[in-house]
Amino acid sequence: MRQPAGRSARRTGGERKPREERWAELIEVATQVFYEKGYEAASLQDIADRLGMLKGSLYYYIQSKEDLLFDVISAVHREGLSVIQARADTEGDPLQRLENVIVGHVEHTCRNLVPTTVFLHELSALPPERRQEVLGSEHAYQGVFRGLIELAQKEGLVRADVDPRLAALSVLGATNWVYRWFRPGGEFTPEKIGAQMAEMVIRGIASEKVLSARVAGQA
Amino acid sequence: MRQPAGRSARRTGGERKPREERWAELIEVATQVFYEKGYEAASLQDIADRLGMLKGSLYYYIQSKEDLLFDVISAVHREGLSVIQARADTEGDPLQRLENVIVGHVEHTCRNLVPTTVFLHELSALPPERRQEVLGSEHAYQGVFRGLIELAQKEGLVRADVDPRLAALSVLGATNWVYRWFRPGGEFTPEKIGAQMAEMVIRGIASEKVLSARVAGQA
Repeated sequence: MRQPAGRSARRTGGERKPREERWAELIEVATQVFYEKGYEAASLQDIADRLGMLKGSLYYYIQSKEDLLFDVISAVHREGLSVIQARADTEGDPLQRLENVIVGHVEHTCRNLVPTTVFLHELSALPPERRQEVLGSEHAYQGVFRGLIELAQKEGLVRADVDPRLAALSVLGATNWVYRWFRPGGEFTPEKIGAQMAEMVIRGIASEKVLSARVAGQA
Repeated sequence: MRQPAGRSARRTGGERKPREERWAELIEVATQVFYEKGYEAASLQDIADRLGMLKGSLYYYIQSKEDLLFDVISAVHREGLSVIQARADTEGDPLQRLENVIVGHVEHTCRNLVPTTVFLHELSALPPERRQEVLGSEHAYQGVFRGLIELAQKEGLVRADVDPRLAALSVLGATNWVYRWFRPGGEFTPEKIGAQMAEMVIRGIASEKVLSARVAGQA
């Protein structure tokens, strides 16, 4: 995790907010401005104006607009990853865990539309090495999905002809796409979307053994 | 379909290409330039330079950069839609047709990465009414998927608890997402991707009746 640059915060007469608080505010405002204007069109001046700061004061925290995009994108990626990793790192049936991960990812996306949109739209604006730094050399996010599918396949719960990487990319596509069409208060709740997508995926990859049990159980 | 503006083409001394050919070339070059630089950063000057034309001559075909984006995006949307509609408008089992539509859509996306990327990245750069004009008031593209799922559900081939619109959006997400990770000559062929995604979707939404038959058939 990148830390904000500059000296440690001092409270002077109660007027100055602690550095961490200013930093969180800066990331939130930058996310909103990148969302509204797009990264290319947004300027550090826009962000400073929104914060009621002088543009020069931003350099206390970052060195460039790219630094800020990197921090915005890192923050949302880290948050989403921690949500799904917590659901993946539990005991028990890997298919059940995959189901929980899918539901968690969909709900997190629906509840964080603005940062998710900036992440998915503007990741390509970062240079390749910083993009890599966000995603992790092993594509940590994709890896959580793929790892559970591989494990379930070894246990005979996923069909042998399913390619785990391709399945993980399918799941990520279906679930990430939500950011393009989900509207709070619309036809579907995040819970409904998460539940149906998870059900489709589990049935989509489950082995005949698992499916037979499901079909028999519901007959 | 929008037609290029201006007078009809005349061949003068064999030097001037027919209008339709110039138009197709303009759309192709504009697509490439929007892909490489992004719509915001790309200029009509860049496009004219690439075509070896004067910038002023572009106004023979279009009135603005936005017109050009609209035409680029309309062209790729129309092409993709005709691919999937041809596969949807056949006789027989709607689940089988859905499978064919998914395979066709994935293969078309993989083989048209540049225009698809411009379509998916830059659609939001169009004003709402032009976006609507491209997609159709009934979301024609999504409608092909949803229509087949609804039909299959009426015939008892899709589980009653599947929401057809949500299922269609899941399928479009998984299949559109391909544009972000597919690389020609990479690990997976378009055929392999299309086949696995279609299989996952069909099993994911199929009714117990259909699944039982599949499981029994493969046992």
